[in-house]
Amino acid sequence: MAERDWEEVILTRHRTYSSQKCHARCLRKDCKVSEILVLGAGAMGSAFCFPAADAGNTVHLVGTHLDLEWIRSVRETGIHPKLKMKFPDKVIPYTHDQLSKTLLSTCDLIVLGVSSAGIPWAVEQLGSLIQNTTPILLLTKGLQTREDTLQILPDSVRAGLAEHGIRNVPVGAVAGPCIASELAAGRDTRVVVGFSEAELLESIVPRLATSYYHVHPSTDLAGIEACAALKNFYALAIGYPAGLLSKQGKAENGALMHNLAAGLFAQALVEMTQAVSFLDGTRDSVMGLAGAGDLYVTCQAGRNSRMGNLLGSGLRYSEAKANHMANDTVEGAELALVIGPALDVLFRHGRLDRKSFPLAIAIVDAICHDLPMNIPWTAFY
Amino acid sequence: MAERDWEEVILTRHRTYSSQKCHARCLRKDCKVSEILVLGAGAMGSAFCFPAADAGNTVHLVGTHLDLEWIRSVRETGIHPKLKMKFPDKVIPYTHDQLSKTLLSTCDLIVLGVSSAGIPWAVEQLGSLIQNTTPILLLTKGLQTREDTLQILPDSVRAGLAEHGIRNVPVGAVAGPCIASELAAGRDTRVVVGFSEAELLESIVPRLATSYYHVHPSTDLAGIEACAALKNFYALAIGYPAGLLSKQGKAENGALMHNLAAGLFAQALVEMTQAVSFLDGTRDSVMGLAGAGDLYVTCQAGRNSRMGNLLGSGLRYSEAKANHMANDTVEGAELALVIGPALDVLFRHGRLDRKSFPLAIAIVDAICHDLPMNIPWTAFY
Repeated sequence: MAERDWEEVILTRHRTYSSQKCHARCLRKDCKVSEILVLGAGAMGSAFCFPAADAGNTVHLVGTHLDLEWIRSVRETGIHPKLKMKFPDKVIPYTHDQLSKTLLSTCDLIVLGVSSAGIPWAVEQLGSLIQNTTPILLLTKGLQTREDTLQILPDSVRAGLAEHGIRNVPVGAVAGPCIASELAAGRDTRVVVGFSEAELLESIVPRLATSYYHVHPSTDLAGIEACAALKNFYALAIGYPAGLLSKQGKAENGALMHNLAAGLFAQALVEMTQAVSFLDGTRDSVMGLAGAGDLYVTCQAGRNSRMGNLLGSGLRYSEAKANHMANDTVEGAELALVIGPALDVLFRHGRLDRKSFPLAIAIVDAICHDLPMNIPWTAFY
Repeated sequence: MAERDWEEVILTRHRTYSSQKCHARCLRKDCKVSEILVLGAGAMGSAFCFPAADAGNTVHLVGTHLDLEWIRSVRETGIHPKLKMKFPDKVIPYTHDQLSKTLLSTCDLIVLGVSSAGIPWAVEQLGSLIQNTTPILLLTKGLQTREDTLQILPDSVRAGLAEHGIRNVPVGAVAGPCIASELAAGRDTRVVVGFSEAELLESIVPRLATSYYHVHPSTDLAGIEACAALKNFYALAIGYPAGLLSKQGKAENGALMHNLAAGLFAQALVEMTQAVSFLDGTRDSVMGLAGAGDLYVTCQAGRNSRMGNLLGSGLRYSEAKANHMANDTVEGAELALVIGPALDVLFRHGRLDRKSFPLAIAIVDAICHDLPMNIPWTAFY
């Protein structure tokens, strides 16, 4: 389809959906259709479009320059190649050059589904195009450093927009256990949506919930975001025993290494609690979907676990990455590279207690210093 | 070997080990050999003997009348048939009729490794034989009801002994992720040992720790015991998605149901926190090895998960038990049958808030009332 024709399709669809009633799977009784813009057409941004559309919203999915192939495929077949699911009709795909002031200004909510490495690009785009204070919701997980300390991504986005003269934009985030392909397939998924602004939260949550996307509100944005980032980091360690097992083999009685993995899981939660507290978040978030729930799902599968397996099998990080996962983004390892030096500064300045983070230090040693992974048993709580 | 000869072996071994120095895997620098009596030669009681002996103690393993075959096998081969591992020499096996006042009085620690159903029998035995205030350590997990409320097992044991006129016996417990066969195989295992008596705790913990058995002290006995019991109960629900998946099949894009399981995992921890608080335990225990750690390992394998799978596949509890797990003790289901009626009373009297336990109610409905398992999405926190 030529670009020109496609624009016509977009306009027609847009007019149609804006006047439609809500989808059958939407939970709202008295529902007005909203316009949601999702920036980033990778697995998570695209998966989010499914419940967003099923909740009755018109969803404008704008790919980045890295998503061109995917957007083309969606236009041709309706199917996202990575999610292997056909989008609801109410999802309208755009290429990155179609992101415009007009499109942004018609939306009630802007959702960022780019990778953490894509955040500066996204902020740059939004910074030059945003004309109002439409709320921004981050699907992206990560922590950044700023002035020798750690910062949650919503704060980074807010700071980035401020550099473009854009202020007072509420920036929130989604956290909790959510494998993208499961969400796209309409599998029951519980997440937490966080905004510091309680009233805004109250209006946004019902606009996203469906019969399978169970959305819980939280005003502890710092807590859920810290958990969302750190679970990838700690999943590296919890994946270690499976790798160690593959190297050492089963015990003579067939015993595996579940006790070890579970012992590290508990330690991870204890350390996450310390980190969340440092970032002014609450323990409730660590105990809930964003912390324990997401850590649980992250340990069942995924790239962070796989890197942990490789470390457990005896490889150094550099070897594991180069020879086995060269083309994969291992978010937990990326985060280790960011927070490793920051933790070191915070320890040295006495702002964090080194003794409270033995597992984090073991992970940082393995990733940042390419040392063998070493479980510091006697240092645990 | 004739019974008479065996007694001679026991005496000789006992004399030898009491004068020996500690095992190489013991962590203590200045270590005195202790005498530990383990009552119950099932998987967990027997597995505990491995680190207990490796920590330098002489371990007297006394089977119950149900463990006769196992004790015989240990005497003949040194191997526990269920654990499929050869005991360290310092573990001395006894049949139930060899439990005596003399044996009990020479021990520094009595460990109960019977099933929760065996607790009354064990209390009866100890009640008639104990002559001093040797501390008791429970490996058994469970909650009981007493005067319309819930009670942790150490309190039940204390109350049972008091009926025999035995008072002032410290009763503690072990909690945390510990699959018996892994412990017996010397796999790294982190547990928490709880006693209300801080000084006693300080003296006992180092006597149990080895290079692979990482023992953390806790004075929150109520918290760790409530977690230890409830994790079996909640594991029933977390096992549900895998069963549902087996019935419904993969989604068209291959998606599984990890999000659902993780969402239930988080809910379980939130509800466990409420229950632990009701029993005067602390949140720290829920976040640590006894709570999150043990729930994690319980969900990776075991009979509670399997029963959850069967419920998820669409079977009622009665069918699942009778046709698939007739000879298995499903501890989470046993617990549901105990706490279901108690919860109902506590809800009616307003001592617990029904709204805080939607997942518990769903489990109780499935087990006690044989209803289909139903996930109460909108009732979750």
